[in-house]
Amino acid sequence: MLQPYDRVFNFSAGPSTLPVEVLEQARDEILNWHGAGMSVMEMSHRGGPFESIIAETEKDLRALLQVPEGYQVLFLQGGASLQFSMVPMNFLPTGGFAEYAVTGSWGEKAIESGKLAGDARLVFTAKDGGYRSTPAQIAWSPEAAYAHITSNETIQGVRFPSDPVSPVPLVCDMSSDILSRPVDVAKYALIYAGAQKNMGPAGATVVILSDEFLAKIPSGLPPMLDYRVQAKNNSLYNTPPCWSIYVMGLVFKRLLATGGLAGSQARNEAKAKLLYDAIDASGGFYTGHAEPASRSLMNVTFTLPDEDLTKRFLEEAEARKLDGLKGHRSVGGCRASIYNAFPIEGCQSLADFMAEFAKS
Amino acid sequence: MLQPYDRVFNFSAGPSTLPVEVLEQARDEILNWHGAGMSVMEMSHRGGPFESIIAETEKDLRALLQVPEGYQVLFLQGGASLQFSMVPMNFLPTGGFAEYAVTGSWGEKAIESGKLAGDARLVFTAKDGGYRSTPAQIAWSPEAAYAHITSNETIQGVRFPSDPVSPVPLVCDMSSDILSRPVDVAKYALIYAGAQKNMGPAGATVVILSDEFLAKIPSGLPPMLDYRVQAKNNSLYNTPPCWSIYVMGLVFKRLLATGGLAGSQARNEAKAKLLYDAIDASGGFYTGHAEPASRSLMNVTFTLPDEDLTKRFLEEAEARKLDGLKGHRSVGGCRASIYNAFPIEGCQSLADFMAEFAKS
Repeated sequence: MLQPYDRVFNFSAGPSTLPVEVLEQARDEILNWHGAGMSVMEMSHRGGPFESIIAETEKDLRALLQVPEGYQVLFLQGGASLQFSMVPMNFLPTGGFAEYAVTGSWGEKAIESGKLAGDARLVFTAKDGGYRSTPAQIAWSPEAAYAHITSNETIQGVRFPSDPVSPVPLVCDMSSDILSRPVDVAKYALIYAGAQKNMGPAGATVVILSDEFLAKIPSGLPPMLDYRVQAKNNSLYNTPPCWSIYVMGLVFKRLLATGGLAGSQARNEAKAKLLYDAIDASGGFYTGHAEPASRSLMNVTFTLPDEDLTKRFLEEAEARKLDGLKGHRSVGGCRASIYNAFPIEGCQSLADFMAEFAKS
Repeated sequence: MLQPYDRVFNFSAGPSTLPVEVLEQARDEILNWHGAGMSVMEMSHRGGPFESIIAETEKDLRALLQVPEGYQVLFLQGGASLQFSMVPMNFLPTGGFAEYAVTGSWGEKAIESGKLAGDARLVFTAKDGGYRSTPAQIAWSPEAAYAHITSNETIQGVRFPSDPVSPVPLVCDMSSDILSRPVDVAKYALIYAGAQKNMGPAGATVVILSDEFLAKIPSGLPPMLDYRVQAKNNSLYNTPPCWSIYVMGLVFKRLLATGGLAGSQARNEAKAKLLYDAIDASGGFYTGHAEPASRSLMNVTFTLPDEDLTKRFLEEAEARKLDGLKGHRSVGGCRASIYNAFPIEGCQSLADFMAEFAKS
């Protein structure tokens, strides 16, 4: 089944599928945005048109996530990888410590950068089990400066099924499942997420943090890496990634118009169910990597009986325009990343193909 | 005079005008890049299609600037403002010092961030003169870890007319005039530039640095802020700003097809001459901010006799689709930013209007 414009079904782990309607609107406005006489890529970030874009984008994101009073919403650069260092630079004081619960490869990266910056301690890891599950409870120390988790692990395909709790400020890398379901922002001190999975083009990073947490930032940090400087300047301390913010804004409008995050969750559950059902109905031909209770709605990871079959599976899938299904080398097998904008028709196509391939 | 698609003449200081042909190509490819079945905004940065885009973009930039052997070309995030901190984090050792020649507002920002990181010393400033000129020679210390300059100051509209020399590694913020003329890269240890003036959409930062300089980087830096990590990973340590890199690549191809940097320089000289001639021929009605020998080809700064006339000038200009001419508050008056992609027709329109307005 071909999509409009001969597009493929793009199962890439990120950057990833954007809504066709968003791409069409971006296309139509690319030479002259709303009569401004120029592209969003060309306009001053200090002028009225772009100020209206970034303000609207922030407002819509606040509405989607129902961000409570007392939280800043920032649009930064550098992706989650820069956040791995910014969080401890801002919040891990000399003489203090932070705790990390590691449930996959991205959590490993986060604590590595934390250790470069100070006393970052591992409070939980699921590494021995091959990162197949997330813990129901974590024994956080009440003395920690903050507690760090990764809500969804892209590579292993495991997630926390609900918002965890912590006695200390909870910091969450939500890069790969932000906006995929409602979350209770009030449970978090800081949420960060690269744009390129569920929100928009790579190059922008969303940070949501409480004013209370913000107040703890020491002075003297490099200005670009100081959340307080960024908050004080409404994400306009320097030129922001204007185009990425603009496209994110279009995505947010579309989410608001299609049932908000409840709509998002319903669609994502239906999509993931098609694939997990295909795994579970295969009589052991496909093996899911994650334990059922921790299965990600965003990244469906599974293996086939052997390497040869995996190779054939990937080749035949690609011939059917099912693109980007190769699993990460650390897990092997296959991975279907089905972020918010990935269409259910693509999940149906893959599920059909999985059944067919298992039979043959 | 209207441009195609009802575009205005955009004199914004950055982000700024892109070539219409580049925007048209981006528009045509936005839903399906070269048959890949997806947008550049959607493709994995680890896949063949994007790898070809970033490799081609780097190759074309190397060709344009005739980058010698032994230099890395990196595509990073965070703009020049993050470079203000990254440079000293990487190259200002404890116990050592760096020197900064400050010829305008951006140089001030650079040394401020340098001082937060270590012993950053002011070796020259033109502040007392209101930043109207650049020095012919600077008394650099041969003991400095590096020497820092800003090749073109956007706000004041002054530039170094030729590549300066230094006895120690020379670091240059070239954000606002990179690719506007040929430069001798071998004279620099590190060049950095935000994309959004002469190269492409905001969100990408070009860094060119010598392997010799790179070898001096200490270990233990936050990975995203460590040039060596970025170089080792060919700018793909994490997800790069893919769309900005892609559009930059289109701009580079166009520059190569229109005479390279010699062509660029000829066009920019002709454009700037129209405006400086209009200033000089006005019998003192317009006053150029920069001294003639240091006049920028990118940012033409000038004042009118009083505030009221300035206000009227800006209003009438805008009515003629001459947009973004208000000067920065620190200089006042007007500023015409006429980067590489700004069309000469816009300079002619402005020059005509300046003559007409002065008469009336």
